Amino acid sequence: MSEQNRRKFIKAGSLALAAGVTGAFASCTTEKSPIETPNINFNNNYQWKMVTTWPPNFPVLGQGCKLLAKWVEQMSGGRLKIEVYGGGELIPSLECFDAVSHGAVEMMSGSGYYWAGKIPAATFFSSIPFGVSAQQMNTWILNAGGQKLWEEIYAPFNLIPLPGGNTGQQAGGWYNKEINTIEDYKGLKIRMPGIGGKVINKVGGTSVLVAGGELFTNLERGVIDATEWIGPYHDYKMGFHRVAKHYYFPGWHEPGTVLEMAMNKDKYNELPKDLQEILYAAIMRLNQWMLLEFDAQNAIYLQKMIDEGVDIRAFSPEVLAPLRQASKEVITEMIDTDSQSKKVYEHFQAYRKKAEVWSKVSEGKGASSFKV
Amino acid sequence: MSEQNRRKFIKAGSLALAAGVTGAFASCTTEKSPIETPNINFNNNYQWKMVTTWPPNFPVLGQGCKLLAKWVEQMSGGRLKIEVYGGGELIPSLECFDAVSHGAVEMMSGSGYYWAGKIPAATFFSSIPFGVSAQQMNTWILNAGGQKLWEEIYAPFNLIPLPGGNTGQQAGGWYNKEINTIEDYKGLKIRMPGIGGKVINKVGGTSVLVAGGELFTNLERGVIDATEWIGPYHDYKMGFHRVAKHYYFPGWHEPGTVLEMAMNKDKYNELPKDLQEILYAAIMRLNQWMLLEFDAQNAIYLQKMIDEGVDIRAFSPEVLAPLRQASKEVITEMIDTDSQSKKVYEHFQAYRKKAEVWSKVSEGKGASSFKV
Repeated sequence: MSEQNRRKFIKAGSLALAAGVTGAFASCTTEKSPIETPNINFNNNYQWKMVTTWPPNFPVLGQGCKLLAKWVEQMSGGRLKIEVYGGGELIPSLECFDAVSHGAVEMMSGSGYYWAGKIPAATFFSSIPFGVSAQQMNTWILNAGGQKLWEEIYAPFNLIPLPGGNTGQQAGGWYNKEINTIEDYKGLKIRMPGIGGKVINKVGGTSVLVAGGELFTNLERGVIDATEWIGPYHDYKMGFHRVAKHYYFPGWHEPGTVLEMAMNKDKYNELPKDLQEILYAAIMRLNQWMLLEFDAQNAIYLQKMIDEGVDIRAFSPEVLAPLRQASKEVITEMIDTDSQSKKVYEHFQAYRKKAEVWSKVSEGKGASSFKV
Repeated sequence: MSEQNRRKFIKAGSLALAAGVTGAFASCTTEKSPIETPNINFNNNYQWKMVTTWPPNFPVLGQGCKLLAKWVEQMSGGRLKIEVYGGGELIPSLECFDAVSHGAVEMMSGSGYYWAGKIPAATFFSSIPFGVSAQQMNTWILNAGGQKLWEEIYAPFNLIPLPGGNTGQQAGGWYNKEINTIEDYKGLKIRMPGIGGKVINKVGGTSVLVAGGELFTNLERGVIDATEWIGPYHDYKMGFHRVAKHYYFPGWHEPGTVLEMAMNKDKYNELPKDLQEILYAAIMRLNQWMLLEFDAQNAIYLQKMIDEGVDIRAFSPEVLAPLRQASKEVITEMIDTDSQSKKVYEHFQAYRKKAEVWSKVSEGKGASSFKV
């Protein structure tokens, strides 16, 4: 990737910083109470807006949202059109939640942990450190009861959330210092959001928030010692391998991050039944597509990095064990102070317990421990 | 599950044995050349049939096909209705391929290895012993080029194949004899279809084909020494834990079996663009749903088995290594005698090579071997 393209990419990577319209928007739905009987009026047209927390045309994430809009338009024969806006194009990224909650915008693509300030439990629907795989997050949410709880905690905000993509297993991050023992985190300044950041603080490091567009320079100039981002595909395009010494795995803080598609409940209810189903199916298709696209591209870009001699490392069990312990402590603090978080996390843990036995046994690992 | 229900389930499990209509069917499509412009005529209705290789109302598989029909009907506002038939209800299961190929029926749900007699390479689109996970099969097919090859090999039969579900990691099977070394397969009679069966024969066992409905009795009476089926959910309902001593994992022969939804190409092309997209999205939604449902139910039923004291075992590395070697030999024989199989398998292997490095590194395993 040329220097110019890299800079362009990094610029696009700047999250949520462009100024945007923050007033109320006119909803473009052409009529208020469509017929909801089986006799659908195929002449009613709907024009929706989707705001996203991703930079415009961000690979996989922004790209997927545009695909969804295309699928919905094709399936509805043009009756439901969705205009997709990158972060900052219509409103700043982190205002998406409020805009959709108030109905100024019909839907958004983001991830639960962005709204942890409003709904602490939302973070459990995006990423849980030392949690489960992407597939298991999907199973928990869609086929093992998680969805009901998710809807419950978003209901007061008039939002319907759905899993609308998954990054799969993320990378541990780029470090300019070797991490051989947990002591090496002492004084380390790393960009890491969410629960992961709190874990870093607990083991003696300092987690900082840096916008995507500034990460490369901050890492290059030593303003930060390390950063996590996503995985080989996006990380390669950011050029981190040119300014950081080591690329660590696994991304213990994000083992399978769920991306969220949330809709304003009233706007959704205004749609006739067929368009509701079309939207739902498109989101499910997107949910699968994003995970597979991450999986496909990460494999390709990891190989590129290996070919280019990037120093790829694995955190040792001696480093992972105290991080796991610190994660438990951070989560315990969360659920001790918020009953909704407690309810969601306990539901997750009950699923996880069974899922881990199944995963272990099905892969033929340690099944002897389950013998009579 | 009561004895009566178990028998009912087992009876339903009888695959492809009921007599069925084998003549030509009238297609119920109401018109031959729908408008394919953006101005869709919402008044054209289509009535499709889907034949399946699964027993009627078979959990997850048959159930999922009925869900798909419901989704399509809702999304299309009733313009595309699909009648789903269990195996043997309209035609015998193994005649599905021909019926859809000839256009007597519009679509079918099955799995590629059922058609290995017609298209040897089709088996690589369902299950490859010691292959990759369900997610990786999906990535290979949908996001890494596999789909194009699949369409290529089905094109002469006028069929469009798509992944329409996945069983996830299957179980190794029920054995009345301990398998401690590869020698224990000598003389062992086991029900195992596909490439797995050939592998069994290569290591000295005898693979036999037994219809689902006869498995329980054959195992009980010692007609066979072992059988594979699917995974904890379906296996529990079949009651195998009552007549077999050991339940072995992993299902090395089926690490993530792709289920196939195939459509007659002419019938598909007759649909207006919006219904084509609706059908595609519904199949993608089904593809995800089935995998997650297997994942959710298998975890629950494995726990039931553990609670009931089922003897769950893991094949030792000493048993798996020669099985892996025998699998390689069987596949080599396949690709040496069929150029299409060679092309498909080499494409799969190229994907797999990258995917395995990514999977290993992302989980933080052995990444040191990729260090410069």
